[in-house]
Amino acid sequence: MTPVFPAHSVGVVTPQRLRVDEPIALECGVSLPGYELVYETYGQLNAARDNAVLVCHALSGDHHAAGYHAEDDKRPGWWDNCIGPGKPVDTERFFVVCPNNLGGCAGSTGPLSVNPATGKRFGPDFPIVTVRDWVVSQARLADALGIDAWAAVLGGSLGGMQALQWTVDFPTRIRHAIVIAAASKLSTQNIAFNEVARHAIRSDANFHGGRYYEHGVVPEHGLMLARMLGHITYLSDDVLMARFGRELRDGKPGFGYDVEFQIESYLRHQGTSFVKRFDANTYLLMTRSLDYFDPARDHDGRLAQAVARTRAKYLVVSFSSDWRFSPARSREIVRALLDADRDVSYVDIESEQGHDSFLLEVPMYHHVLRTYFQGIPLSAITP
Amino acid sequence: MTPVFPAHSVGVVTPQRLRVDEPIALECGVSLPGYELVYETYGQLNAARDNAVLVCHALSGDHHAAGYHAEDDKRPGWWDNCIGPGKPVDTERFFVVCPNNLGGCAGSTGPLSVNPATGKRFGPDFPIVTVRDWVVSQARLADALGIDAWAAVLGGSLGGMQALQWTVDFPTRIRHAIVIAAASKLSTQNIAFNEVARHAIRSDANFHGGRYYEHGVVPEHGLMLARMLGHITYLSDDVLMARFGRELRDGKPGFGYDVEFQIESYLRHQGTSFVKRFDANTYLLMTRSLDYFDPARDHDGRLAQAVARTRAKYLVVSFSSDWRFSPARSREIVRALLDADRDVSYVDIESEQGHDSFLLEVPMYHHVLRTYFQGIPLSAITP
Repeated sequence: MTPVFPAHSVGVVTPQRLRVDEPIALECGVSLPGYELVYETYGQLNAARDNAVLVCHALSGDHHAAGYHAEDDKRPGWWDNCIGPGKPVDTERFFVVCPNNLGGCAGSTGPLSVNPATGKRFGPDFPIVTVRDWVVSQARLADALGIDAWAAVLGGSLGGMQALQWTVDFPTRIRHAIVIAAASKLSTQNIAFNEVARHAIRSDANFHGGRYYEHGVVPEHGLMLARMLGHITYLSDDVLMARFGRELRDGKPGFGYDVEFQIESYLRHQGTSFVKRFDANTYLLMTRSLDYFDPARDHDGRLAQAVARTRAKYLVVSFSSDWRFSPARSREIVRALLDADRDVSYVDIESEQGHDSFLLEVPMYHHVLRTYFQGIPLSAITP
Repeated sequence: MTPVFPAHSVGVVTPQRLRVDEPIALECGVSLPGYELVYETYGQLNAARDNAVLVCHALSGDHHAAGYHAEDDKRPGWWDNCIGPGKPVDTERFFVVCPNNLGGCAGSTGPLSVNPATGKRFGPDFPIVTVRDWVVSQARLADALGIDAWAAVLGGSLGGMQALQWTVDFPTRIRHAIVIAAASKLSTQNIAFNEVARHAIRSDANFHGGRYYEHGVVPEHGLMLARMLGHITYLSDDVLMARFGRELRDGKPGFGYDVEFQIESYLRHQGTSFVKRFDANTYLLMTRSLDYFDPARDHDGRLAQAVARTRAKYLVVSFSSDWRFSPARSREIVRALLDADRDVSYVDIESEQGHDSFLLEVPMYHHVLRTYFQGIPLSAITP
């Protein structure tokens, strides 16, 4: 039976695994003796090895960015609308690589992994990994794949931060950075939301100091709350109203705490389904990594100085209704790049979908990405 | 020893208590055989009894709006900057009344009260009380105090909703409604935040279906989370950044989950101190009451129709940086009042303090309130 996938799909993909036996010295001071990264690739590396694109995932993402894991898979990867043959990141032209981040919970080494020193899962003993650490770990993935320089590194939100960090840490190994719905550092409000999310997880009676695996439980209420809160902030006030309204289920109040408004059932559903697929310790780690991100910290807060020696061309994208990573935050990046006389394009996309826009098929957004990627010169056509 | 209070203070005040033995039929269908309201008053009722002002509190407020409870009290009531001799709501001229709402936890009948039918605290059996119910209960307080009509009813946030409802339900008993930082109904986003807060409380291992009193515990983590989340939304992104910044405590990451950013310790402090003074069941009730508020519901969603038979003059106030109850929500009220040909003044106050502004001494805001109250005619001067 021939599988029937939507047109322009990369089809069935199989996750791959890289084992790195070289120690990695993390920013926190801990050195991991080695690590594994699970990743997927789409398209083919060309003979000149100059068509490779690194996709960096955000807080709750993973390596499964495009295609399907099986012929009867219901849902494709998280960025399938953007990556594939004929899509904005065109796999007929580019060789796309998407790893699960170190510290993640989708197969790469992280809190769920067994600590060889104890024979138990790392859990809370897994060190906090930073954006800079991720970039190092991804550079080794590039080495293993024989990629000297990425044609482009792209990502939204936390993924965009990684793209930006790449240009700072490996200026000669990245030609284009596409920084979408990101910021050069979190606002206080963002840190505050992260703190509430972490507090929800850590105060859950089932958290057990992060060693919940050993108790056969998960801090599901805390993780659910974190996700519910996240979802509110990923969408704009307007789109919440347009999508869910505030009509009462029975047209009048039921005078209780069961679901009465559609938004309540949406959030509960999002929360419970997230708990089934995500690990709470990874959520803690990822949010802390977000908090810490600030490439200007070592330069007296001067971002322009931090990017002074970068060599990539930049595309910065923001979304008009994104209040979690607002256009103003993107413009801070753009201003710093201009101050440093870097080559930067910037576009603010009109969209009502808030921060979520970066994952959606917003026509103007995809048009901009498509055009930008078409303009990236390659020395050879992919076979 | 003569107490030394700041100038323009109402000084030491003593809460009073009203016992109502007449049953109150609540909107939810439950009838309470009677109830008690604890309240405070400031200033004196004049001979014509036309100088009474009702102050309605918001989600976490109480009856202690102004003055001190003892000579060595450190902190005055929650709206002390606004109420007192020579202050915007001038107690030399007005007789100010502020009750704790029915269902509250500061002394009025609510979940903390003993249910005569069981001899135990009501807890989750206390019925959900609506804004309309509060207005009825406050009208009886007016009866008991010999007040036929309020010179004004005012409040911010949920308090503003009560002022608006007063004009609809008792058009002849209110001459002025001052509706501050409010909305004619919550947005979907607001309901969503409330849902997360309720979920935090209800999923706390110490909640016990709301009967936590009987277990000698309180759902402190859940209530703390609810409050932390609330505080984020009461302040603007800009003011959070200006007030707390994002500097790390030690200048560099500590790579852990202890407090590293100032905003984290602020939120934790706000959360823990709230748990000491507030009851979780009341928090649930108040947020649900907020969700339900919608005076247009009985008029096919047409607010102009709901206010068509009101007779009060209105002052509507919003704050530029308030994103929890944005100026747009205030303008919806103003538009409906204008459509209904009502007498309304509206001012959007430039303030960076977000929703919290309504509690703060923002100069232009207090100037507007002062001027408005000075313009309320009284038939006699207070003795």
